[in-house]
Amino acid sequence: MSDALPLGSTIGILGGGQLGRMLAMAAARLGYLAQVYDPAPGCPAAQVAPCVTAAWDDAEALDAFAAAVDVVTYEFENIPATTLDRLAETRAIRPSRQALRISQDRLPEKEFLNRIGLETAAFMAVTSEQDLAEALSRLGSPAILKTRRLGYDGKGQVRITDPAEVPTAWAAVAGRDRTVDAILEGFVPFEHEISVIGARGLDGRIACFDPAENVHRDGILRTSTVPAGVPARVTQDAVLATARILSALDYVGVIGVEFFVAAGRLVVNEIAPRVHNSGHWTEAGCAVDQFEQHIRAITGWPLGDGARHADVQMENLIGDDIRHIPRIAQEADARLHLYGKAEARPGRKMGHVNRIVRRG
Amino acid sequence: MSDALPLGSTIGILGGGQLGRMLAMAAARLGYLAQVYDPAPGCPAAQVAPCVTAAWDDAEALDAFAAAVDVVTYEFENIPATTLDRLAETRAIRPSRQALRISQDRLPEKEFLNRIGLETAAFMAVTSEQDLAEALSRLGSPAILKTRRLGYDGKGQVRITDPAEVPTAWAAVAGRDRTVDAILEGFVPFEHEISVIGARGLDGRIACFDPAENVHRDGILRTSTVPAGVPARVTQDAVLATARILSALDYVGVIGVEFFVAAGRLVVNEIAPRVHNSGHWTEAGCAVDQFEQHIRAITGWPLGDGARHADVQMENLIGDDIRHIPRIAQEADARLHLYGKAEARPGRKMGHVNRIVRRG
Repeated sequence: MSDALPLGSTIGILGGGQLGRMLAMAAARLGYLAQVYDPAPGCPAAQVAPCVTAAWDDAEALDAFAAAVDVVTYEFENIPATTLDRLAETRAIRPSRQALRISQDRLPEKEFLNRIGLETAAFMAVTSEQDLAEALSRLGSPAILKTRRLGYDGKGQVRITDPAEVPTAWAAVAGRDRTVDAILEGFVPFEHEISVIGARGLDGRIACFDPAENVHRDGILRTSTVPAGVPARVTQDAVLATARILSALDYVGVIGVEFFVAAGRLVVNEIAPRVHNSGHWTEAGCAVDQFEQHIRAITGWPLGDGARHADVQMENLIGDDIRHIPRIAQEADARLHLYGKAEARPGRKMGHVNRIVRRG
Repeated sequence: MSDALPLGSTIGILGGGQLGRMLAMAAARLGYLAQVYDPAPGCPAAQVAPCVTAAWDDAEALDAFAAAVDVVTYEFENIPATTLDRLAETRAIRPSRQALRISQDRLPEKEFLNRIGLETAAFMAVTSEQDLAEALSRLGSPAILKTRRLGYDGKGQVRITDPAEVPTAWAAVAGRDRTVDAILEGFVPFEHEISVIGARGLDGRIACFDPAENVHRDGILRTSTVPAGVPARVTQDAVLATARILSALDYVGVIGVEFFVAAGRLVVNEIAPRVHNSGHWTEAGCAVDQFEQHIRAITGWPLGDGARHADVQMENLIGDDIRHIPRIAQEADARLHLYGKAEARPGRKMGHVNRIVRRG
């Protein structure tokens, strides 16, 4: 730990949503200061750390931010390249630009995964309605059309079950301009969705948390449960695949890797170069949670070992789910974590609850 | 919970040390905002919540603070009465003035405890060297001379083992003026020191965490361990005594009650009307920790039930104990919590570590 960032140093966090907020609190618990950068005034992280409110292309604000922090990290992958270019002139960005570049775009992401020997859904790049028709005839129905960039929580994607749906599907994803960089993915008839939250330290060591089993509804994660209901061989393979990704990217920080389990085979769905919603269970199940793990990685601490000391189910509180808070507050083994968002819009993640499942 | 403070309300915290800091973080996790008031610039809580830096007698700052918050609480008991008078004009203060008045002064505190049927050390009020000599001849040696107010971590007290020490002892405690309101306490030859962190909600319900066994060194808490190494009857009596104190004070919030266990009898040492260092283990051992429990109590939430799901030892990191951080960071079951203090002075609490003790 002699090379670790000294206590009292400042960690710059790009993005002040709930992930940035929880990263800032983890930084504080390790004796670091946090400084957040977000274009949106009144972002959730601003309640727990000083926050710069400025646009991603505000050169002056970016320079001042870089000068005020000792290392830069981020809570989401869709930060403009020009922003990162400017910050990278004077500060280390962890995870690296390379990791971000690959995971920002579904096409190089899948190519990278295949290159290192991991299975993905079949895919084809698509930039026009004609491309789409051709790709669909090759990959077959059903298939999923996705924008290559900027999708999250099921946004920017549409499922196609019949060739006749091509024009509507293209219009839905390409929008008014009728042009977008998209990808068509073959449908994977999976039995389980699982994810691994892994981390790699500055020293190259890797630690992974146990795979969680995820349930989505309307494209949004509802619950993550550990242990996942899959054979030990599958969880082990998922951890090994995550380690392979971390090493191949020379990664520093926490990563989230989503897998489908299809006929006992592991298919990588996507990777997120950051702390991940499906890792919130670690707050209740591990001595070092994913947020602290990320701060440890990017500041040069030894990683926590990822060992799990309890069975946990994490449930997202989305939109008006917050009406259940009075009931949840009465549950003996529930740990509630709210994000300080004023308005409960549909689909908006307002908080989560970790339930410690007692073993019989 | 229909009467609970609405989410997004602001909790005013008097005192911005590590306890105020951890209260602010717990408030955030429940969806509340925090605002801290502390005369010291750069206090630890200011890193995680907005902080007013102003003197305790700054009427203008106090009025602005009261206007900006929805309820007032505090992290330590030695807040000037005039400060509280001013705030109480417009805002509820929880725990109440009455609880604070009793625990601020060792004399009414002991009288109160005896009045509700709880045993304390024998004691006599002392205001002069002559009083002290007389009290010592009545209570016998050894005995402990303490200032009635403002003592903490062993400060403001001296042990007397022989009547010949009376002049030096008085000088040490009374200082240059040779006058102070003090108390002489008979020595309790105890086998164990334990403490109970209890809470009482706005609805009058009570929940206590398991008693911890405490080890002090040089008057400062070193470790708190659960379960305590005392018979079940003793821990049960300690919980019942804590509940009696909470009810008698019509208390709202978290309280810390320290006991000696002497020949199997419980002797109350002192009460602290706030979250307490010996309750930090709850962060690792309970679904709802003492900080969240306090926020729940003062905002009208149902209390967590206090159930413990792990055996834990909490160790304080004092002064240059922080040199052990690299070793602690490698321990698999250690949860580190640092307070963001820049300078590691001797006797200064820099952080703590909770170690989850695996049962064999």
